[in-house]
Amino acid sequence: MNLMFISDEDRADLWRTHLLKQLPGLNFYVWPADSDVDKTTIDYVLVWKPAAGVIKQFPNIKAILSLGAGIDGITCDPELPTDKPIVRLVDNSLSQGMTQFAVYWAIHFHRDLGKYRVFEQHKTWTQLPQSDAAECRIGLLGLGELGTAVGQALARLQFNVAGWSRSQKSIDGITSYAGAAALPGFLKRTDILICLLPLTAETEGIINGRLLEQLPRGSVVINLARGRHLVDEDLLAALDCGHLSAAVLDVFHTEPLAPDHPFWDHPKVTVTPHIAALTFPHSGAQYIANNVRRMERGEAPENLIDLKKGY
Amino acid sequence: MNLMFISDEDRADLWRTHLLKQLPGLNFYVWPADSDVDKTTIDYVLVWKPAAGVIKQFPNIKAILSLGAGIDGITCDPELPTDKPIVRLVDNSLSQGMTQFAVYWAIHFHRDLGKYRVFEQHKTWTQLPQSDAAECRIGLLGLGELGTAVGQALARLQFNVAGWSRSQKSIDGITSYAGAAALPGFLKRTDILICLLPLTAETEGIINGRLLEQLPRGSVVINLARGRHLVDEDLLAALDCGHLSAAVLDVFHTEPLAPDHPFWDHPKVTVTPHIAALTFPHSGAQYIANNVRRMERGEAPENLIDLKKGY
Repeated sequence: MNLMFISDEDRADLWRTHLLKQLPGLNFYVWPADSDVDKTTIDYVLVWKPAAGVIKQFPNIKAILSLGAGIDGITCDPELPTDKPIVRLVDNSLSQGMTQFAVYWAIHFHRDLGKYRVFEQHKTWTQLPQSDAAECRIGLLGLGELGTAVGQALARLQFNVAGWSRSQKSIDGITSYAGAAALPGFLKRTDILICLLPLTAETEGIINGRLLEQLPRGSVVINLARGRHLVDEDLLAALDCGHLSAAVLDVFHTEPLAPDHPFWDHPKVTVTPHIAALTFPHSGAQYIANNVRRMERGEAPENLIDLKKGY
Repeated sequence: MNLMFISDEDRADLWRTHLLKQLPGLNFYVWPADSDVDKTTIDYVLVWKPAAGVIKQFPNIKAILSLGAGIDGITCDPELPTDKPIVRLVDNSLSQGMTQFAVYWAIHFHRDLGKYRVFEQHKTWTQLPQSDAAECRIGLLGLGELGTAVGQALARLQFNVAGWSRSQKSIDGITSYAGAAALPGFLKRTDILICLLPLTAETEGIINGRLLEQLPRGSVVINLARGRHLVDEDLLAALDCGHLSAAVLDVFHTEPLAPDHPFWDHPKVTVTPHIAALTFPHSGAQYIANNVRRMERGEAPENLIDLKKGY
């Protein structure tokens, strides 16, 4: 069995080590170093943000395996073959990482821990009132694998959690709002908005001025999905006029974020370098190997993408 | 029914409002403003850090009700009557607050979020490896109400959690270490030590140089219990020689912490002003009213203190 690894951002050596433990007979090739291999013999491509036209050079692949949970870095290839199944990566490391990151920032804002950091710098001993987590309304944009994991963790910590998604969901501890008509009601009750949507034609630019003005004054925006969900200028305007109190941004239109981008220095914005959740090769390799074994047995893989929905 | 409120740190007006909602027939007096009331008619004292000799002035009280989870601020009164039951406050707001605070700092250190804050200041786009929470070993000193709540929340977030207590415990997701003989094994496997012990003769000064040197190099100490659990100089020495990587301190020998105390400016120490968990009067009043009703019916109150154990 032959697999071609195509990514500039992931470590081929780690993925090779962990995949060979799971699939000892695998021939693991790396693009472009191994570009002289017979491309018709490649069974699978394991990819993240391939250059346009690379994937179509492998005519006999059984599936395109994404190294990420989102697949917008694959479907943006204008020459992507449309007859090959695409499988996204669903891994405990991603939901664990997203959960940690979202929980951290929810507590940070709920408990005013940024203010205590300033108090400490001034050696000020001041106790702020502590309110009940049940009074802190968290709103998740997106209730897929990651949104659900994050929402359930926050609900277990007694936060008041709602989620907005395309279709109605029934998840313990999470109030479900579904479809465009339900969005205003969802925004009106949200103090901390956390975006974990897939990037599709419908969700691109969804966090814009029209959406932000429907949040209560003083609310917080946390984007953990994709930079293109957000209209940067609209977020800056909502922060600067005092409507929003803070934003945490882990993803950006262009990554790395340009040194002259106003997000870096903005006093109300926290910038992190797309690290909310990284895939651990050791557990990601287990997931991918399981899916490869399923396909080799003629079964459908788990978490096959529906290209019509875009996720 | 007559109750005397005795505390310089808690807001009498809020406690009056919330207690009267629960116990409409209650006469709520405040010390020392109401010191001319007939002291023999007082049924209960609701107290936090009363001055020495104040409580004994009320000869007919049925119980001493603590405004805090710890009762060291009451038992340190050398003239405390020994024949009156003492009841500590066990309230969801305390376990919720402690859980939030401990979870926040566990994620902070596990995910290197302090380093990302420095990266942001330098506009540096660097991704650090993300390890599995299961490889991050949290050790709770103390597995009472609060330690158990904190440990369970951390276990649900997939951290590797152990707890050390006087007697063996059986709590889902928490490895139990009990008694002095088990302390070295507990410390050896602990990357993040969180103290939630009661303050007793045995636990005073327990976080000293001998204990700290048994933690792995690079570990972190978080004290959320009482300042007197910690030997300040020993902690500073362990931080300065590089054995410990960080400390978060919410409690101190003297509070407020003196402006010239070295903790304030130490680059490895985070100081917070005893805010990990505050009591909400609205839920605390429900708990206290329930206990008063039990005692008025002749039943034992919940969470009666065992003065021999000291908690």
